[in-house]
Amino acid sequence: MPHIALPDGLPGISAGFAFRPETARPMRELAHVLLHEPNTLTGGERELIATYVSYLNDCYFCQTSHGAAAAAHLGDEELVKRVKADFRHAAISEKLKALLVIASKVQKGGKHVTAEDVEAARREGATDLEIHDTVLIAAAFCMYNRYVDGLGTWQPREEGLYAAMGKHLATEGYRKPSIERAEVA
Amino acid sequence: MPHIALPDGLPGISAGFAFRPETARPMRELAHVLLHEPNTLTGGERELIATYVSYLNDCYFCQTSHGAAAAAHLGDEELVKRVKADFRHAAISEKLKALLVIASKVQKGGKHVTAEDVEAARREGATDLEIHDTVLIAAAFCMYNRYVDGLGTWQPREEGLYAAMGKHLATEGYRKPSIERAEVA
Repeated sequence: MPHIALPDGLPGISAGFAFRPETARPMRELAHVLLHEPNTLTGGERELIATYVSYLNDCYFCQTSHGAAAAAHLGDEELVKRVKADFRHAAISEKLKALLVIASKVQKGGKHVTAEDVEAARREGATDLEIHDTVLIAAAFCMYNRYVDGLGTWQPREEGLYAAMGKHLATEGYRKPSIERAEVA
Repeated sequence: MPHIALPDGLPGISAGFAFRPETARPMRELAHVLLHEPNTLTGGERELIATYVSYLNDCYFCQTSHGAAAAAHLGDEELVKRVKADFRHAAISEKLKALLVIASKVQKGGKHVTAEDVEAARREGATDLEIHDTVLIAAAFCMYNRYVDGLGTWQPREEGLYAAMGKHLATEGYRKPSIERAEVA
């Protein structure tokens, strides 16, 4: 039961976005730039960072929708599960592992990131822009996750819904709604 | 010492914004809508929420700059200190106290917000939009704070700098930079 009168039939963040279009616009735009625009980190890598932070924040809607977007990019659902369970032993690059360490520090609080964490990522080939974007993706999901759960949004449990959403996000990005009310009504 | 090669002479978030203008634009826009555009919560009330969350997240740059913006709005520096130290006994409305309770729950994590917290705010006259904006201001500062500290930005300790910044933010808002390199070089 949402804490405020959000529009019916819209899951997770979509309901907050429909309730307040003025804040939805920059929030969508930020996600689009961070997760969808061309980047030396692949869409799959960036969605894995978003998914992992959302998992640490225990946000069902975000970890499931971005996990589905990561799976759509990577063509591999199992890898997404493996990263959430134990990314250090998942079949991902050493660079991405080092970036996930930074992201998990940011999730706890910005001051947890150390010069050694950053140096370790750099040793695996991470650029300053990739480190910047990792910090900001992790920070931004600390916002999105809190927004989704802090409003008490409706978060349906149908896996098929998230698979469709993830496919849409992976191909179209974040500027336009991925969910129309009719799809989930 | 910043973790990545941020431009010199720009304090706090300004350095991240200059490093990555593509993400700066929506981040500035979100702050502008939440903190500066017309709202039934005053600018001073919204800056107090931003300041309090930044204080809980122990972000020196954000609590000082937004504290200065709140003081500029309210014409009262002491009140800002009092809210940070013990808002329950500060000379602010019961509605703002109830909203600060919600903001402090969001800072811990979205799921900490309870129906009772929201009902208490509503009893003091808070509208759904005010509750929404409180949740989102608190969530957004969990992003801004982590971004500022996660990059290891330079955060000078000159109080006069923040007073000038706060005055600028309170009058001009967040769409344009409040700090030019020359001002702090």
